[in-house]
Amino acid sequence: MRPVQIGLLGLGTVGEGTARVLFKNAEEIARRAGREINIAHCCSRNQSLAAELSLTNVLTDDPFAVVNNPDIDIVVELFGGDEPARELVITALNNGKHVVTANKALIALHGNEIFKAAQEHGVTVGFEAGVAGGIPIIKTLREGLAANTIEWLAGIINGTANFILTEMREKGSDFSSVLKQAQELGYAEADPTFDVEGIDAAHKLTILASIAFGIPLQFEKVSITGITGITPQDIEYANELGYRFKHLGIAKRTDKGLELRVHPTLIPKKRLIAHVNGVMNAVVIKGDAVGSTLHYGAGAGSLATASSVVADLVDITRALTTDSENRVPHLAFQPDALSDLPIVAEDEVASAFYLRLRATDESGVLAKITGALADRDISIEAFLQKEPVQVGDDVDIIVLTNKIQQQQIKAAIAELSGLDVITEDITCFHVEMFND
Amino acid sequence: MRPVQIGLLGLGTVGEGTARVLFKNAEEIARRAGREINIAHCCSRNQSLAAELSLTNVLTDDPFAVVNNPDIDIVVELFGGDEPARELVITALNNGKHVVTANKALIALHGNEIFKAAQEHGVTVGFEAGVAGGIPIIKTLREGLAANTIEWLAGIINGTANFILTEMREKGSDFSSVLKQAQELGYAEADPTFDVEGIDAAHKLTILASIAFGIPLQFEKVSITGITGITPQDIEYANELGYRFKHLGIAKRTDKGLELRVHPTLIPKKRLIAHVNGVMNAVVIKGDAVGSTLHYGAGAGSLATASSVVADLVDITRALTTDSENRVPHLAFQPDALSDLPIVAEDEVASAFYLRLRATDESGVLAKITGALADRDISIEAFLQKEPVQVGDDVDIIVLTNKIQQQQIKAAIAELSGLDVITEDITCFHVEMFND
Repeated sequence: MRPVQIGLLGLGTVGEGTARVLFKNAEEIARRAGREINIAHCCSRNQSLAAELSLTNVLTDDPFAVVNNPDIDIVVELFGGDEPARELVITALNNGKHVVTANKALIALHGNEIFKAAQEHGVTVGFEAGVAGGIPIIKTLREGLAANTIEWLAGIINGTANFILTEMREKGSDFSSVLKQAQELGYAEADPTFDVEGIDAAHKLTILASIAFGIPLQFEKVSITGITGITPQDIEYANELGYRFKHLGIAKRTDKGLELRVHPTLIPKKRLIAHVNGVMNAVVIKGDAVGSTLHYGAGAGSLATASSVVADLVDITRALTTDSENRVPHLAFQPDALSDLPIVAEDEVASAFYLRLRATDESGVLAKITGALADRDISIEAFLQKEPVQVGDDVDIIVLTNKIQQQQIKAAIAELSGLDVITEDITCFHVEMFND
Repeated sequence: MRPVQIGLLGLGTVGEGTARVLFKNAEEIARRAGREINIAHCCSRNQSLAAELSLTNVLTDDPFAVVNNPDIDIVVELFGGDEPARELVITALNNGKHVVTANKALIALHGNEIFKAAQEHGVTVGFEAGVAGGIPIIKTLREGLAANTIEWLAGIINGTANFILTEMREKGSDFSSVLKQAQELGYAEADPTFDVEGIDAAHKLTILASIAFGIPLQFEKVSITGITGITPQDIEYANELGYRFKHLGIAKRTDKGLELRVHPTLIPKKRLIAHVNGVMNAVVIKGDAVGSTLHYGAGAGSLATASSVVADLVDITRALTTDSENRVPHLAFQPDALSDLPIVAEDEVASAFYLRLRATDESGVLAKITGALADRDISIEAFLQKEPVQVGDDVDIIVLTNKIQQQQIKAAIAELSGLDVITEDITCFHVEMFND
């Protein structure tokens, strides 16, 4: 089947990521979508990057050439900003092309017009990448929680603001010095107004609220307060009272109507969302059936945002390719494209391990244990020896190992169990660091 | 348009929840799906519940009458277990009906056969409710993260086991006494084997791994260890070393193939998933583009699981109703079904508030502040007064209020600012408890 032909507008952070994801995962994506996705036209002035991405042959500096190209099925708008993005998207839709965009300002401000044009021409506009980067929050709200009357949602939906608040708390620094650091790290723009004053979060909240509550987009109704008024003292006082500061976008159904607000918020530390730190994003959704759900991930970044752009491309490709009742294969991949990836035998599974050994309380015990482990090339990452409750009692010795195969730890346990100083069966559990 | 006709097999916990969600949210669901969803046939022996749910007229005690009923579009299988669930589902598919099920054992053990039958008849099997209850994790993996090569996933996917481990840690109790308590609370079955020995988690992991890695379902290859071997001492030692015990299902791509394993795992406390407690579920997915994402919510329960059953019904209804390129409306609800829910004015927004007041360090200050707040019916939920750094310095006074309207706190601030003991502008932030 002919590949789906996409026209890419922009090779900035997200555009470059989109091209890289489409190339790197081309085979898996085709196995999922049932069809290849091909960059057939690309508008950028960055000729060296285009060359690096092997896009020179399809490069243009005229975006209207892309949206008017009759061979293009889907236009991917990654210019950002207002014009010419709006005009390009409308032109693409009028030409009967589907559109995917990461442009939250465009959708929040012009979405009503854009969706109307899409509907008139029977095409789709995907904007998953516009809210919370790589977190599939639009799909979750629009489809995954479609059974619910949504009561409220609240999100950390601007990574820059969350990074600044996290640093202020961890380092005790004030707003302006952390902002400067964030700018140096590339987490904040030279003009940080959109992020720190809450405009960007309000764009995203506008979109989430419309989808959650079935109302038209109305950015102008959001009440917005930024994070510039928070001092290190406030963060410390909140901490003493058991709270964390987060910059939240909140949409809440009340008896009087819908509250739409972006502002700094104290949240009890015991809530999961209070532990979302750095540039990460998270959205909590309260539905009347499901209760509270939380969705967490990278809210920005080249590849993470591209993950959502390409998910929208796969969505549209699936719809273009199969009958709608079989749009998504049961096991995600096309039935004729399952893989025979082997399953690793239990003995060859690798992880770090926790060992608890009960041993006599005498000198030399530790040396025997560590020696036996060292002989098998098992290193000790952490260690805990408890004092005996009474003199003469046996003692517990706890060892965390490095990452090894299960058969190695089994063999080590067999050997350690034979030591005369070990007085009970050895307990062993897996340890996972979640850092890869 | 004629409503989509569903045949409901079972009015147990999930069946009752499904009926209740479909009735309660009928109007919102139809606005999203573009069509009503109607329970046209229902198999249960619980006549009193059927009467309470107004299903008496469509009640039968013969499940084959439902799956062979020519008027039924979608069969919802909520009997659970192996037979007759398998035969009923296969018969429904052979009759050209779509199927939605919450039965993870059925899918994990017979999914390959079931999906083949569905494919042959051009129909869909929805099983979102089979994994992690109300969390739309199947949709997230199958669609939301479709751009990614999945590197690994790890989930707390059995609420009973997580409840037991949480109670053991918080109370210092041993496994068997907590299990007994869980049974009394209805969180554990009389025969808890499936939950505490990891069989249920392995069923769910089997499904997640197939979708993540594009492999056939192969439950028999999962290595499984339950939680019965964990002692309160182990939990305490793990805590001292900075870790929490969680019962995880893990699927991980390695050079040797795929690891599929369910076992107790020590996780560093600083990871978000280490803070998922009680009966809640969470799944972490690591994709090569998106990085780590986490998806959290209720893993069981009548209405939460029904949320996923009904999401599958909406998915199929949308596919049956519109052309596939317009399957999901841009704003979730059909364009002609948007609501005009009013947006609440900023002054009428209600929340708790944090106030920081800088005041002279003299007797009677506190009384003036609390008096002014009390006069406006604002109660104080928490309170912090800092000592002056040096005698004679002004002091910070922090107040957390009850939930009130923004205009109330504004008026109170205006009044407090006029007090002669207040020496600086008053700082005010929202507080949200996230407990409703």
